[in-house]
Amino acid sequence: MTSPLRIIPLGGFGEVGRNLTVLELDGDIICIDCGLMFPDSDMPGVDIVLPNFTYLEENVDRIKGYFITHGHEDHHGALPYILPRAPAPVFATKLTRGLIEVKLKEHGLLDSTEIHTIHPDDTIEIGPFKVEPFRVSHSIPDSVGFGIETPYGMVVHTAEFKFDLTPVNGQLTDIRRLVSYAERGVIALLSDSTNAERAGHTPSEAIVAEALERVFERAPGRIILATFASNISRVQEVINIATEFERKVALVGRSMEKNTAMAMELGYLKDDEGVIMSLQELEEIPHEDAVIVCTGTQGEPNSALVRMAHDRHREVSIVPGDTVVVSASPIPGNEEPVHQTLDHLFRHGADVLYQALTPVHVSGHGSREELALMLTIVAPRYFVPNGGEYRMLALHAKLAEGLGIPSENIFVIESGNVIEIDDKGARVLERTVPGEYIYVDGSGVGDVGESVLRDRRLLARDGFVVAAVNMRDGEPIGQAEIMTSGFVYHRESSEILKELADFTTDFVRKTKAPASEMGDRLKSALGQRIHELTRRRPTIMTVVKEV
Amino acid sequence: MTSPLRIIPLGGFGEVGRNLTVLELDGDIICIDCGLMFPDSDMPGVDIVLPNFTYLEENVDRIKGYFITHGHEDHHGALPYILPRAPAPVFATKLTRGLIEVKLKEHGLLDSTEIHTIHPDDTIEIGPFKVEPFRVSHSIPDSVGFGIETPYGMVVHTAEFKFDLTPVNGQLTDIRRLVSYAERGVIALLSDSTNAERAGHTPSEAIVAEALERVFERAPGRIILATFASNISRVQEVINIATEFERKVALVGRSMEKNTAMAMELGYLKDDEGVIMSLQELEEIPHEDAVIVCTGTQGEPNSALVRMAHDRHREVSIVPGDTVVVSASPIPGNEEPVHQTLDHLFRHGADVLYQALTPVHVSGHGSREELALMLTIVAPRYFVPNGGEYRMLALHAKLAEGLGIPSENIFVIESGNVIEIDDKGARVLERTVPGEYIYVDGSGVGDVGESVLRDRRLLARDGFVVAAVNMRDGEPIGQAEIMTSGFVYHRESSEILKELADFTTDFVRKTKAPASEMGDRLKSALGQRIHELTRRRPTIMTVVKEV
Repeated sequence: MTSPLRIIPLGGFGEVGRNLTVLELDGDIICIDCGLMFPDSDMPGVDIVLPNFTYLEENVDRIKGYFITHGHEDHHGALPYILPRAPAPVFATKLTRGLIEVKLKEHGLLDSTEIHTIHPDDTIEIGPFKVEPFRVSHSIPDSVGFGIETPYGMVVHTAEFKFDLTPVNGQLTDIRRLVSYAERGVIALLSDSTNAERAGHTPSEAIVAEALERVFERAPGRIILATFASNISRVQEVINIATEFERKVALVGRSMEKNTAMAMELGYLKDDEGVIMSLQELEEIPHEDAVIVCTGTQGEPNSALVRMAHDRHREVSIVPGDTVVVSASPIPGNEEPVHQTLDHLFRHGADVLYQALTPVHVSGHGSREELALMLTIVAPRYFVPNGGEYRMLALHAKLAEGLGIPSENIFVIESGNVIEIDDKGARVLERTVPGEYIYVDGSGVGDVGESVLRDRRLLARDGFVVAAVNMRDGEPIGQAEIMTSGFVYHRESSEILKELADFTTDFVRKTKAPASEMGDRLKSALGQRIHELTRRRPTIMTVVKEV
Repeated sequence: MTSPLRIIPLGGFGEVGRNLTVLELDGDIICIDCGLMFPDSDMPGVDIVLPNFTYLEENVDRIKGYFITHGHEDHHGALPYILPRAPAPVFATKLTRGLIEVKLKEHGLLDSTEIHTIHPDDTIEIGPFKVEPFRVSHSIPDSVGFGIETPYGMVVHTAEFKFDLTPVNGQLTDIRRLVSYAERGVIALLSDSTNAERAGHTPSEAIVAEALERVFERAPGRIILATFASNISRVQEVINIATEFERKVALVGRSMEKNTAMAMELGYLKDDEGVIMSLQELEEIPHEDAVIVCTGTQGEPNSALVRMAHDRHREVSIVPGDTVVVSASPIPGNEEPVHQTLDHLFRHGADVLYQALTPVHVSGHGSREELALMLTIVAPRYFVPNGGEYRMLALHAKLAEGLGIPSENIFVIESGNVIEIDDKGARVLERTVPGEYIYVDGSGVGDVGESVLRDRRLLARDGFVVAAVNMRDGEPIGQAEIMTSGFVYHRESSEILKELADFTTDFVRKTKAPASEMGDRLKSALGQRIHELTRRRPTIMTVVKEV
C-alpha cells in the first residue's frame, strides 16, 4: 500500500523569493528549488533570508534530490547554505547548473556536491517519483517546470513561466508536454502567482529588443545598460544590437563577469563578431561606440551602476551625453534605492530610460490570461497557487474558481503548511512544519531571529542610552556617566545629557536598594524621565556596580 | 529702482512633500505652501520632515504671508511647526482653511494665528505682490494655484493640478484665468512635476465614481472603503452612491471624523438623505446595508484599516463577504506596509479591490499631456519644474524643451537653491540657503540630524554591545559584564557573550593603560574580535572605571 503524497512548501508561498517545495512519498523526499530571498527594509542587518530547512535537517536521510527550475538566485541561491546541513544531489539544466556552480565555488562547496545535468524531455526516476522536466519561457534561458508522476496522478510544478511566443532564445513553454500530463491526469497543479494582479498577457521579450534598438539608434554617446547578472538573454540582446550598430561592449562587475564567462563557455552567450572588450579597452574608444553592461538595477549599494550614480566608481563617471538604461523593474521593497539611483543619474546629466518610461524591460511572469491558459491546459483536480505574496495567491485562487475549479479543491497555503493527497482526495493538514524565515547575518545562519530584529527596530527608532555609575554603601561614587547613540545630537543636546546624568546620580542616592536591584529600577525611572523630556523611548542599559 | 525678484524653494523641489516656496521682492517675502513630508524608511524614528525654516527664522520680520494652495498636509501640515518660529498671516480658500484650523487647534495655535479666507478670482495686494489665486482641479476641493504680479511679469505657481474635465465637485482648472496671465506676460512658471513620468492624460475622477458603483452593485456584504481623511470629494462620492444603493455609512477614525465634520459644517460635504450614522448604529444593521469609510491607505500602523487587517480594531473584524476598497495609491516608500495590509485583508477572506486591479483611485496630478498643455497655455519665459523627485523634474524639463522653451531658460533646482530675476533675465545663484531636511522626532524639532540617523542605521544593522569593567591598579575587578541588544539571540549565543566577557577581562589585564585610555583601546580591540567571530560590526560602548 502506497503512503499518502505530501506537498510541503518551506518557503515561497505567501512571499516572493526563497522558493523551496518538498514532495514526500513512501518515505522519500524531493525538493523543487532551493532559493534565497533578499531582506525587506523591516529586516535590518539581515543579509539574506533562507527557506526554513528545519524539516530537511530532521529528515536528511530521506532527501533524494534538489530539482532546480532555473538560474535565478531566489530559486537556487540557498543551496550553499542548505546543502551542508541537508546534503543531496542537485538536478538542473545546463545553464542553471553553470550558475549554481559559480555560487558553490564561491562557498567552497563545488567538489563536495553531486550535480546532474538534466534536459527537458528527460524522465528522471528517483525513489517513487518519475520527474519529467518541461521547458518554460522565462527571463533566463534553460528554465524548466516539472511534471512528477505519482501513484495519485501527475503533480505539475510550473516554475516561473510566461507564454512568450517570440522569446529571444526560442525557448517556448512546452504546451505539448503539458497536454501529455493532462492526458495522463493531473492531481495537483502548483502554478506561478507572481503576476496574478495583472490583467491580460505579459508582453514578449521581443518588444524589449525593439525598445533597445530605438535606444541605440538615438543615443548620442555611451550607452550604459544595467540588468541582472543572471539575465543572460538580455545580455545576448545587447550584444546582438551592439553588433548591428557597430558598438563595442564591456561587461562590468564581478557577478556580471563571472556569469557571462560561464554562459559563454557553455554556449549560452554568443559574441560571433567579437564586440566584447575589457573596460580598459573600451575607455580608449569614442563614447558613441561604447556600451557598458553592468549590475545595479535594484539600487544595490555596491553594484556598478549605483557606484557610478554616486560618483564612487573608479573607472566610469557619468557625463551628459550618456544614455543609461535600467533594464529591470524594482523588486518590491527596493523602490527607494532604485529611485534614488535614477535621481542621481539624472543629476549627472544622463538621459535615463527605465520601465516607467519605455519598454526596456518586460516581466518574466505570465499575467492573468496566461495563468488561465495554464490552468485550462493542465486541467488539474487540485490547484495550489504558488510563488507570490498572499494577495497574489488569493487572486490566483479566485481566477481558478472562475475557471470552474471548485473552491474546496483550491488550497491557498503558506510556507510550513502540509497538503496531503491519498485515494480519498487532498486536504491541508492541521499540523504544520516550521516555515518561518531563517536569517543569514554576517557569518551567522539562524542566530538572528524575530526578537533580535524587534530590538534592532527599536534601536533604529530612538537609539539607546547607557547609564553607568558605581556605588558604595548606598551612595553613588562621583557623577554618573551617560553614553548614547542614535538618541540626540550630542553637541546640541548636552543639556539633556547633563540632566540625565544628574537624574541618575540623584536616583541612586535617593533609592534605597542594593546594586543588584538598582540597575532595573534605574532603567525604568530613567525611561520615564527620558520620555517626559523628549517623547522618545530609547533602549536603556544601566551599569550599576557596588565597589 | 525695484530690487530683483527671488524664488527660493525651502522644500518640495527634488522630493515629494514638504512644499514651501519663498518669493522675495523689495525686502518682502511671501511663501507658497508650508507642508510636511512623511519620513522614508531610511529615516528611522523620524515622525515628520519639515521644510528648512532657517531662512524664514532669519527673515521673520519680512514675511507677509503664507499662501496655501490646498488642504493636503504636504502643503500646509508644517504650519503648526513653522508659525511659532516664523509667524505671519495665512491665506487659504474656505475648505483649505477649515483643514488648517483642525491642525492648528490640535497644536493650540488657532487663537494666535491670523487667517484670511481667499476666493479664486480675488486679488490680494500684499507688499509689492499682487496675488491672484486661480482654481485648479485636484483630488481635494477648493484647490488653487497662484498668479503673482511682479514688476518683471507674472509668476505662475500651478500648485498640484490636473485638467479633469469631469471632476466630482465641478471645479475645473481655470484655463481662462491662465490665459489672462499669459496675455499679461509670464516671466516664470512653476509647474507640478509629480506625474512627469506618465504618458498621456490622467483619467478623470468620474471613472472612480463608475468603478465604485460597480463595487456597490456586486458587494454581497459590508463595504469598507479606505481613503485619505482629507479626500473630501471621495467621501462625497461614497455618500452619493450609498444613497443611491440605500446603504448607511459610518465614518471611522479620529482624523476622518474631524475632517468630515468640518467639511459638512462648511458645506463641502452633503448628506441630504441622512445616510451617515455612527459605527455603533451601523453594527445593528445587516452587513449588506453597511458601508464603513476609514483611513489606512498608506498602511499607517494606527489607522482604522490596518487595525482591522491585523485584528486589532475594537469594533470591526473583517469577515468573508466583506468587500474592502483601498481608494488611494501608495505614496512612494509606503509600498511594503500597504502590501502587508492587503495581504492580511485577503487572509481574513475579504474581497479586496485596489488600484492595481480596478480604477477605484485615480491620480490627482496631471500626466505629460496635461503638463504640456499647462506650458502651452501659460507660455512662460522661464520654467521651473516643481514638486517631484529629481528624475521627475528632469523629465518635466525635457518635456518643456521639446515644446520650445530654450534649455537655458529652464531651471531644474532643488530645495535651497535661489533663482534671481531682474531686467536682464533670470539665473540660479551660486549661493544657496539651507534646504536640508529638518526632522521632528517626538517633541524635538531639529535636534535629530543626519549624524543621529547614521547612528540609528548602524544600530539597526548590527545592534550594540556594552562592555563594562572596573579596574584597580591596572587589574580588572572580577569578570567584565557584556550587555547587548539587537546583536545576537541571547539564549543561543551565550557562548559568544561569554567569550567576549573573557576577552574584555583579559584585555584589561594585559593592556598597560590607565582607565581613561582603556575605554577606547578596548573598544577597538573588541570590535575587531566581534568581527572575527560574527562578521558583524555592532556599535560598541565601553565603561571602564578606576575604583
